[in-house]
Amino acid sequence: MYKFLFAILLFPLLINAQNKADSSFIRGLYTRALVQGDAYNWLKQLTDLTTENGNRLSGSLGAAKAVEWGAEVLKDNRYTVSLQSVIVPHWVRGGKEECFLYTFDEKSKKKKKIPLTITALGNSIGTQGKTLKARIIEVNTRDEIAKLDSNLVKGSVIFVNHKMRADFISTFEAYSEAVGERISAATVAGKYGAIAVIVRSMTLAYDDYPHTGTLIYRDSARLIPAAAISTIDADVLSYYLKLYPESEVTLSLSCEMLPMVESHNVIAELRGTTYPDEIITMGGHLDAWDKGQGAHDDGAGIVQSIHALKLLTDNGWLPKRTIRVVLFMNEENGNCGGKEYLKQAIIKKEKHLAAIESDAGGFCPVAIGIDAGNDTFANLGAHLALLKPYGIDIKNGGGGVDIGPLQIIGTVTLSLEPSNQRYFDYHHADTDVFSAVNKRELELGAATIAATVYILSEYGFGK
Amino acid sequence: MYKFLFAILLFPLLINAQNKADSSFIRGLYTRALVQGDAYNWLKQLTDLTTENGNRLSGSLGAAKAVEWGAEVLKDNRYTVSLQSVIVPHWVRGGKEECFLYTFDEKSKKKKKIPLTITALGNSIGTQGKTLKARIIEVNTRDEIAKLDSNLVKGSVIFVNHKMRADFISTFEAYSEAVGERISAATVAGKYGAIAVIVRSMTLAYDDYPHTGTLIYRDSARLIPAAAISTIDADVLSYYLKLYPESEVTLSLSCEMLPMVESHNVIAELRGTTYPDEIITMGGHLDAWDKGQGAHDDGAGIVQSIHALKLLTDNGWLPKRTIRVVLFMNEENGNCGGKEYLKQAIIKKEKHLAAIESDAGGFCPVAIGIDAGNDTFANLGAHLALLKPYGIDIKNGGGGVDIGPLQIIGTVTLSLEPSNQRYFDYHHADTDVFSAVNKRELELGAATIAATVYILSEYGFGK
Repeated sequence: MYKFLFAILLFPLLINAQNKADSSFIRGLYTRALVQGDAYNWLKQLTDLTTENGNRLSGSLGAAKAVEWGAEVLKDNRYTVSLQSVIVPHWVRGGKEECFLYTFDEKSKKKKKIPLTITALGNSIGTQGKTLKARIIEVNTRDEIAKLDSNLVKGSVIFVNHKMRADFISTFEAYSEAVGERISAATVAGKYGAIAVIVRSMTLAYDDYPHTGTLIYRDSARLIPAAAISTIDADVLSYYLKLYPESEVTLSLSCEMLPMVESHNVIAELRGTTYPDEIITMGGHLDAWDKGQGAHDDGAGIVQSIHALKLLTDNGWLPKRTIRVVLFMNEENGNCGGKEYLKQAIIKKEKHLAAIESDAGGFCPVAIGIDAGNDTFANLGAHLALLKPYGIDIKNGGGGVDIGPLQIIGTVTLSLEPSNQRYFDYHHADTDVFSAVNKRELELGAATIAATVYILSEYGFGK
Repeated sequence: MYKFLFAILLFPLLINAQNKADSSFIRGLYTRALVQGDAYNWLKQLTDLTTENGNRLSGSLGAAKAVEWGAEVLKDNRYTVSLQSVIVPHWVRGGKEECFLYTFDEKSKKKKKIPLTITALGNSIGTQGKTLKARIIEVNTRDEIAKLDSNLVKGSVIFVNHKMRADFISTFEAYSEAVGERISAATVAGKYGAIAVIVRSMTLAYDDYPHTGTLIYRDSARLIPAAAISTIDADVLSYYLKLYPESEVTLSLSCEMLPMVESHNVIAELRGTTYPDEIITMGGHLDAWDKGQGAHDDGAGIVQSIHALKLLTDNGWLPKRTIRVVLFMNEENGNCGGKEYLKQAIIKKEKHLAAIESDAGGFCPVAIGIDAGNDTFANLGAHLALLKPYGIDIKNGGGGVDIGPLQIIGTVTLSLEPSNQRYFDYHHADTDVFSAVNKRELELGAATIAATVYILSEYGFGK
């Protein structure tokens, strides 16, 4: 009885002491992240490597070099590393991407030829060595194609000029609202007999960079080429189409889908001391579109995940639960890495408690997103309130493409949520380069992931 | 009695309806800000103007042109504009800023001459057409000067190599911790007989840009020249001083303080319909250091304040209280504009209820800072909870240099608080240019100021 009473009286003190210890541990993570700057230095290495060897799109030499690099960095830091085989698509852009508008100049009463800044959408077929030439018809969304005169659509190029919504506060919501056009316009236009589609770039920036990204052909019988056009040239094109609806475009794309090849997820594991069978995964994706250097998308997530592990273990800390860093392959055009990771988890009967992904750019972190039931959310949220001094809120809903498949086996998925206003200025475009990433913002993200994984490892989903 | 009961029963409904109306009004502010983009376009104008006419430092042609431009933009938008005369200091950098390190190369056993990237601190005297040459002594803080051998200090150049604290989460706190070195090192070094000081730039960026900023001579009898050195060259200098303590530097600065001149605060006023005597000021400062284009500091605050007024009045809304936009002059090296604004307020017996300043860069807004008593803070905070969907928290403590003097007459001061991780990468340096500002982040700030002023105008400090 005395013992029981003692325990009751002592309990709040213990909680408080534990809270102080956690608080102090987390403060150490942030301090080291900001002072060491490892994530930033690794991002420089990864993006330099990309410049040397070419982009990191799945199946490329650059992707293979990035796998080697990731494994080496992790080994150099004395973590146990394994490569998980993943069969990935191998799409290549090739050398040629050309688009001209043939229109009519009102002033000079002469025909006019205007080059348009475009780039093929990922997975698109090319124009088979030919240059297509056809009338071009503007729509706001792909749904409008069905309502057009079917004779007009047949043999034409469809121009989907759907603007991302500037008035949405979250740019990810604006992206979600618009991205269906990029993904599916080729399928719809192909169904109605169009010979190609040109889609306004998925960005809120107004500039002359086209933004690529995946398209999905839902009907393999009617594949037509598809390209993104810069926001400025989308407006140029729209302007001339209003003046002169008979305008034509030529389109020449050399992209093609090659046979699938083997690549790898890179996995580093640190076994848990108390619950080694409970796995917590943190990661991002190593592949990137073949534009810019894949610095924000998702070099940032890669180097933050590696740095998070280093921050946690710098002073000899050992996790209660097993922690993994996973550098996923092929998030951008297939998610074969994420699916393979789930498959192997099922085969090996692994228990995946939680997974956190950073794939929203290396910007200033503002929240941890959590996709979990009410109790788990409340318990995690209570612990993660310790991140408030670092500007981190808790948000309902979280995860990522790579870790998404793990939800099938009941894994709680989380995400690092950075400030998102700038993200789509860089997303899948030549602007996504190392210099667009701020060192402190990147490192704050690494510390935030580390702190979240620390809490998950220490407490699981308990109070 | 029935009437009373009716009122009691209806009151929560009325509150709720008012809350919905406020919420809807505020949503409109954000939508228009993000869609119109006026602040961004004006910032382009202001920074282009600066490139054409030279910088906007107080007393310069560029500052005079900026005053004209500000008044014109406000008049073009049909606001009542007045110019408030302000006598300001007129410091000029002149053409020459040169610094060389004369040291010794261990490998070649030869003397070595290395150019160092420096820039005069604002208000510094120059070297009077001469080139100083002297030994250079490194200290971490100005307090260490007193502890040095006084014979060593006499006739030497003091190098204050104090790093801003990377481990602080708020960069403004890191700046506060360090900036005393920039402001006062010249006074302390002068007192002990040094002939010049070189201070490590106040930035967390590691690059080759020196960051200027104001110094204050506290003893007019011993003025010595002072310059900031880039963070990279601070490390270069420190490296060679450790290898070869006999190293010398030459320093040549052409800067000088000219006689004071007249300039202006630009004031636009919209009279309140219900409480016209209660004034709410929103503003930033029009002057800027003579580095870069003064885009974040404080072109952003200027164009956000103008846009905030436009956003509020777009659809014919009239304020209950009087609203002013004030484009202050001379925040950077004297705060004469802020002091004059207070002086005139006292002379005219104006009642200044509240003032909000934006002077922390055009980055993504994350909070409104409020410097007020508990009740006022609580009441304002309750209303401003409406900004939570836009990522805006309420923070204790707020204001700005320009509006600071108004606190003397009991004005509640507030500030727009943007994400601050990047701010000191640009602050007072050549990197502070238009392209470093993101359109959406800037416009979100304008809407946040507008929403705050709306609440202040509607409710004062009441519930």
